[in-house]
Amino acid sequence: MSAFRITARAPGSAARLGELVTPHGTIRTPAFVTVATRGMVKSLGVDDLLSLGVEVLIGNTYHLALRPGAEAIGALGGLHGFTGWTGPWFTDSGGFQVFSLGAGKIHGVGKIAPIFPGDVPMKPTGTSLVALSEGGARFRSVVDGSRVFFSPEEVIRLQRLLGADVILPLDECTSPFHDRAYTRAAMERTHRWAERALAAFERTTGLGPNPGQALWGIVQGGAYEDLRRRSAKAIAGMGFPGFAIGGSLGRSKEDMLRVIEWTVDVLPDDRPRHLLGIGGVEDILEAVARGVDTFDCATPTRLARNGVLLTFAEEGFRIAIKNARFARDDCPVEEGCDCPTCARYPRAFLRHLSQAGELSYYRLATLHNVRFMVRLLERVRAAVVTGQDLSAVLPLHRL
Amino acid sequence: MSAFRITARAPGSAARLGELVTPHGTIRTPAFVTVATRGMVKSLGVDDLLSLGVEVLIGNTYHLALRPGAEAIGALGGLHGFTGWTGPWFTDSGGFQVFSLGAGKIHGVGKIAPIFPGDVPMKPTGTSLVALSEGGARFRSVVDGSRVFFSPEEVIRLQRLLGADVILPLDECTSPFHDRAYTRAAMERTHRWAERALAAFERTTGLGPNPGQALWGIVQGGAYEDLRRRSAKAIAGMGFPGFAIGGSLGRSKEDMLRVIEWTVDVLPDDRPRHLLGIGGVEDILEAVARGVDTFDCATPTRLARNGVLLTFAEEGFRIAIKNARFARDDCPVEEGCDCPTCARYPRAFLRHLSQAGELSYYRLATLHNVRFMVRLLERVRAAVVTGQDLSAVLPLHRL
Repeated sequence: MSAFRITARAPGSAARLGELVTPHGTIRTPAFVTVATRGMVKSLGVDDLLSLGVEVLIGNTYHLALRPGAEAIGALGGLHGFTGWTGPWFTDSGGFQVFSLGAGKIHGVGKIAPIFPGDVPMKPTGTSLVALSEGGARFRSVVDGSRVFFSPEEVIRLQRLLGADVILPLDECTSPFHDRAYTRAAMERTHRWAERALAAFERTTGLGPNPGQALWGIVQGGAYEDLRRRSAKAIAGMGFPGFAIGGSLGRSKEDMLRVIEWTVDVLPDDRPRHLLGIGGVEDILEAVARGVDTFDCATPTRLARNGVLLTFAEEGFRIAIKNARFARDDCPVEEGCDCPTCARYPRAFLRHLSQAGELSYYRLATLHNVRFMVRLLERVRAAVVTGQDLSAVLPLHRL
Repeated sequence: MSAFRITARAPGSAARLGELVTPHGTIRTPAFVTVATRGMVKSLGVDDLLSLGVEVLIGNTYHLALRPGAEAIGALGGLHGFTGWTGPWFTDSGGFQVFSLGAGKIHGVGKIAPIFPGDVPMKPTGTSLVALSEGGARFRSVVDGSRVFFSPEEVIRLQRLLGADVILPLDECTSPFHDRAYTRAAMERTHRWAERALAAFERTTGLGPNPGQALWGIVQGGAYEDLRRRSAKAIAGMGFPGFAIGGSLGRSKEDMLRVIEWTVDVLPDDRPRHLLGIGGVEDILEAVARGVDTFDCATPTRLARNGVLLTFAEEGFRIAIKNARFARDDCPVEEGCDCPTCARYPRAFLRHLSQAGELSYYRLATLHNVRFMVRLLERVRAAVVTGQDLSAVLPLHRL
């Protein structure tokens, strides 16, 4: 079973330093959980993750259950044995795919969308691949178009086989375009699903390769204060050992921060809090200051693949490596960065590999961005320990 | 300047063990030169190459001159400074592209093609992007369609800027479908180009980042014995410190081996011999036994990307990792292989990454195949030293 210890608290904010102990290692919090949707961080290997100081990965139950299948992974010792990453694993439940393949497609939005009263969804990006009922979520497989049904119980069974250290119950991540009535109904169903997940989790003790798994609860309620507080109270009341904050997170970063404040205010102080799907530099600092312990987000690795490299040395924390100004630049991506890419390659070479579409580019860029996130969280933890204001983490920038 | 020392000879064959000393390190021969067409082995980084025991890379003058340009690379210290691979580099001259983008496209063939008297080219794969004249080769750029002209002198200037340790003169790699008259005329032009390249190499002493470059000569003459012998004699007479055997290599592996025998018979014994573009397991053993010292070939890395993993443990030296029989296989690709991939990942995971099109797959597969080639050449060198028959290198197989 996971245990969470708070080892220091920042004066003047809700930030705290902690240790999340799992059957496969201890995670120093605040921590960024690196996304490995299909079992590995895209373009990297386990050797890379170890050299970068990565401590924990998050896989996706929906994608892994469709391919290669939870049974196949379970037969090889779960994610730890199958992928070779023997450190801590999280798995997301598929609840985000209820949104991203459902209302997200119809509404043409992400978890945060700038909407105003009377707005309607503007640019649908496709047909929903999801049908929801009290029983669960019926999906079209993105692999082969077949139908798959995810009930709260089935999602627990799948995650028992995958064997991650921290697992999550099936929930419904609502859209910023869902109205209050829909958001409330979805939240109440998510609460019923959470109860069913807990019961299934108890019933399946002993199933799968990892007897020490922990099931955390997910708080929903959109950007409505009373719903968020109700959801946090209901989920906390079920006795989960940790909590995740799910979307929708409203129409702006400010809305997101308010959602965090309302939620954290209700959750028990002694248990870990995860913010699902958020990983912007300022977002992490602001959320840590409000008491969030862990984060996951595909953006740092996706940006790398798209030519955007993260750096503390530039406004906006990024450079576009394809820019012509780097064509003969013999400097590393960021002076002072200790990542394997900055140790060895000039910007001009990364630009060339990127322009030429060379496979090596994706790894070298991803190595840098993943190490940037590790360094960012190292700075955050150091600031919490020393009682520094978190804004000191970013010397060039004002929060 | 490069130097070549023969340190041992096999009894009963022309195989020899050697050391090729370059300004950037010593290569133990027989050696496989790993292909890094655009400056890096596809999907890998320098850290990978070092951990695999790779000693030498070969880049391509045509591709690097088009993008990012030889001047840009020269300004960053040549390939050594630009790419971070500070060990020995070869560069090919663009002569193979004269074939692959020219007659190879029109004739629809590679360097070896099963043809018979009266055969005509059967399946053209496109329009030639090359026009040849006494002056040189006019290309259409594969990057942007612009026209570029490669004279023997320009190819030396470009390679001076790229700064590889072993460079090659512009030649014409003929097609197996070229008749004797054409092959002879092309060979004679290649000889005139070699003289011009040598003169240009002398004139450009001091240009570029690597004053210790060596220019090796290329032998042509197709699969015609008298032409091959004439070409070897003519090129050897020009005083090159090393030699490469160019295609066409005839209609079969047997033809290829005869071409090697005719050529090696004429070349001076004390200088290194490179076989361009050949890298099959048996081909390497047979060519080493006939006195070839170094090889390069894109096949091992291309096979990896296409799902074919090399192994000493199977007939044909390969497995197709996508095969359904590997879906729950928890063994490494090859028992006893010391590569980073076999150390950590089960076949089932590699199959999954490959099926899912995950970027990590390409690197993990390439790591294995490159290490296989390093291990193969280690076995070859050990067999030469101990006077073992080279067939003992492949315990499962008869040559």
